[in-house]
Amino acid sequence: MSSLPLESLEYQQARERIAAAYDTQLLQSAGRKVIDLLAEHLEKCQASSKSVLNWNEPAENITVAARMLHEAEACEAEEIESRIQLLVETIMARGHNLHDPRYIGHQVPASVPLAGLFETITSVTNSVMAVYEMGPWATACETALVREIGRLIGYPEGSFSGLITSGGSLANLTALLTARNVTLGESWKEGLSSRNPRPVMIAHGAAHYCIERSAGILGLGTENCLKAPLDDRGRIDVEKLEQLIRDVQSQGHPILAVCASACATPIGAFDPLHPIADLCEKYNLWLHVDAAHGGATCFSDKYRHLISGLERADSLICDAHKMMFVPALCAFVFYKNREHQYQAFQQSAPYLFDPSAPDLVEYDSGLKTIECTKPAVAFGLWGIWATFGKTLFADLVDLTFSLGKVLYDKLKAAEDFQTLHEPECNIVAFRYRPEAIRNAPAEKIGELQLRLRRRLIESGKFYIVPTQFEGVAALRCTVMNPLTTPTQFDELMQTIREQAQNLIGSEGFESSMQ
Amino acid sequence: MSSLPLESLEYQQARERIAAAYDTQLLQSAGRKVIDLLAEHLEKCQASSKSVLNWNEPAENITVAARMLHEAEACEAEEIESRIQLLVETIMARGHNLHDPRYIGHQVPASVPLAGLFETITSVTNSVMAVYEMGPWATACETALVREIGRLIGYPEGSFSGLITSGGSLANLTALLTARNVTLGESWKEGLSSRNPRPVMIAHGAAHYCIERSAGILGLGTENCLKAPLDDRGRIDVEKLEQLIRDVQSQGHPILAVCASACATPIGAFDPLHPIADLCEKYNLWLHVDAAHGGATCFSDKYRHLISGLERADSLICDAHKMMFVPALCAFVFYKNREHQYQAFQQSAPYLFDPSAPDLVEYDSGLKTIECTKPAVAFGLWGIWATFGKTLFADLVDLTFSLGKVLYDKLKAAEDFQTLHEPECNIVAFRYRPEAIRNAPAEKIGELQLRLRRRLIESGKFYIVPTQFEGVAALRCTVMNPLTTPTQFDELMQTIREQAQNLIGSEGFESSMQ
Repeated sequence: MSSLPLESLEYQQARERIAAAYDTQLLQSAGRKVIDLLAEHLEKCQASSKSVLNWNEPAENITVAARMLHEAEACEAEEIESRIQLLVETIMARGHNLHDPRYIGHQVPASVPLAGLFETITSVTNSVMAVYEMGPWATACETALVREIGRLIGYPEGSFSGLITSGGSLANLTALLTARNVTLGESWKEGLSSRNPRPVMIAHGAAHYCIERSAGILGLGTENCLKAPLDDRGRIDVEKLEQLIRDVQSQGHPILAVCASACATPIGAFDPLHPIADLCEKYNLWLHVDAAHGGATCFSDKYRHLISGLERADSLICDAHKMMFVPALCAFVFYKNREHQYQAFQQSAPYLFDPSAPDLVEYDSGLKTIECTKPAVAFGLWGIWATFGKTLFADLVDLTFSLGKVLYDKLKAAEDFQTLHEPECNIVAFRYRPEAIRNAPAEKIGELQLRLRRRLIESGKFYIVPTQFEGVAALRCTVMNPLTTPTQFDELMQTIREQAQNLIGSEGFESSMQ
Repeated sequence: MSSLPLESLEYQQARERIAAAYDTQLLQSAGRKVIDLLAEHLEKCQASSKSVLNWNEPAENITVAARMLHEAEACEAEEIESRIQLLVETIMARGHNLHDPRYIGHQVPASVPLAGLFETITSVTNSVMAVYEMGPWATACETALVREIGRLIGYPEGSFSGLITSGGSLANLTALLTARNVTLGESWKEGLSSRNPRPVMIAHGAAHYCIERSAGILGLGTENCLKAPLDDRGRIDVEKLEQLIRDVQSQGHPILAVCASACATPIGAFDPLHPIADLCEKYNLWLHVDAAHGGATCFSDKYRHLISGLERADSLICDAHKMMFVPALCAFVFYKNREHQYQAFQQSAPYLFDPSAPDLVEYDSGLKTIECTKPAVAFGLWGIWATFGKTLFADLVDLTFSLGKVLYDKLKAAEDFQTLHEPECNIVAFRYRPEAIRNAPAEKIGELQLRLRRRLIESGKFYIVPTQFEGVAALRCTVMNPLTTPTQFDELMQTIREQAQNLIGSEGFESSMQ
């Protein structure tokens, strides 16, 4: 098949259509409209004058999304701007409003809106990195942030390294891959086949699921991700951890890493890092800490004690898209030993890495991350930091952690709510358990929590999430919107009571509670 | 340490500082300014009135980026908007301008600007997904796109599945992880230890580096990623592939997958997919195709013949942030067998996946991707598709592939340039080899290409990339800006000649050419 001849009408028409799509005046006018719509939308969300979650069934949403793709073929040039407005309004009308203070759900923040604005530059200009020359300024921003945060974590100047990658799961995988390559000799090149006895890793018993997944991905096998026993506050029990290490070592299994959590997901428990680091030193083990949520306490004078010892970790991860309140995804990996940044991947790619400029290799992000092309996600964090200073991040931690305590106090004071733990941060798990069902079987109480929550979120009035506590379903809030106020906690509790009354009173439920 | 009491002055001040950062009027006024600056910037880039690449040494850039973080602490409230403007201008002044038509470099596009605008909604509202309820509309857009593109690839309706993930490397890893789990039985749970003989995979001899990396990550070992021999056009030699398969199988090694490329990175060679699929059927092997670059030819009547047979792949990947011209990262994975979408990861996470709504599990993206929280990256592609229709993507492929041919014809017609292959798409590799150095040793000619290129890109006049061809360095262009014109190819060649003259004439170079 021959290519389009330049002089053909077909070629000229294609060029014209493309020029229209790349028109910068359209970008400007549509862009201003998008900004206006966004500002209006966020204002309404902040004032809770919309639903938190706009609930529609998947099939209905998918039908609409597909129809809008098909309709486009009939869109005339003069309709483009109104078409864009319709699409933008549809996105807003059918999404989830994390900026509503009644969003008290997953560990995904109501992000600082201006961070998204800086990322607009990333998206519109398609700013990326991989080799230094592809994104010199993206590389500079990322490097400056790595150095600042590494210092706040407490690594000695010049001794550590770090990188940004696409999310906490990928960050944990990258760090554990490094741990595997360093601790298991030639595993990168030779693989894990015919390793005997089989290598294992040890992780916090309620670690995020991505830790066990990493064992599955890296060829260890999920059953070789051993669970470290927890104490009654949900933290790694150090004595039992030592026993486990001894047992495993006595059977000859190499231990790839010990993975602690700061904090663990279910109830936000922070592991005792100094005693765990002592153990890892004693037994010569790689210490990895998943500080996706809690790492940002390094900004806070009030709460940095929670991660005391983090600077002793051989590797750690910290999600800026959690407690630094930037949009997803922006996850940091840090290595205590600077050289470990090159141990995850050990390869050459001639068309990328230029032998005529060997000094630049240190700044080639693709050598350190699974991503080859990687967007300049650092712009969001760098932008708000360079605007508001790092005080902003201390404020965000201090305020939301304080609000976690406020929510807990209210739940504890209410007779019909059951608190499950004293919160260490902004994560609070609990159950609604009024007098009428207090003697119901545990699984029935669990079932009520799940059905309650589903009604609650589909109503659009609040957004909270489910969890399990001691094997039974429970409710869980994370205060990820710093504009949430204590009044909204009162309203949440009142709304739960009302929903429960409807539910418990509904046919079939009461009898099932026997 | 106690939390901040709500009535404390400290708490009130933190609240006020945060409210200022979340102010929607600031978002609107700063947002309009950012849009205006972006539109002006892109207009200048399109007109080539700036440098393509703004070259500064890493140390200098990092110093500036760090200083701007520190300066923020002194920024007063009334200076916020001018501060933001300064930061935005700095980002633009020190970055790489992919929208300049003289950017003819990596396979990273001058993206459709409006796609970035739709992604602004993703960033500012922090729209994410993981479970359906976290991003119902994001899930709907992604699902609609998967269905449309799967159909265009040629998978039968309802039989296939797909997902979006953070980049081509991660997409290839995800698909190969699925292949490993399906073909190697219990490898997810049990790992690869004590597998003997060791499993291998077979990949295109010049596959993207992420394929061999995948073998390293997944526990196979990079030395167990065998290279399929290529023919003289850089494509997998099917006869030699069959011989390799037989040899490997006769030694008892399980073959995880055969990985073909559509196209391979160095010169854009498309593998013959039908004959390779025939072989895979004959020997009962998993066929994976890395169609990161070429998958989008499914939109084009002119070029879809290049990927004929792609619909026979058990898994394939296609980067929308390449030939669909959306910002990075937006990579698709497709599975021919719908059920394989659940084979990459096989786990439960109780706080995420709600047993009270089992019907929704099919729409929980976190079950299929390494990312737990994943941004709504589909908004960019969905937005421009729903605005301009899929004709836009056909135009972009047709135009840039045609331009590849135009560049090739010009290089071939010039006596001082050496073409290395007849291009199948918009990737063109070549060398500058004037009469004066024609008899120089090959490595000296290679060295000239690299030094030439470095001068060229640091001058800001053009951006092209290095590659290797038959072991010797060469130059490589990918036409990733549809606004590039044939005139710019003439200018590129002229600029290379001028740079080379300076370089060859410079002290020390000529003698080294002997």
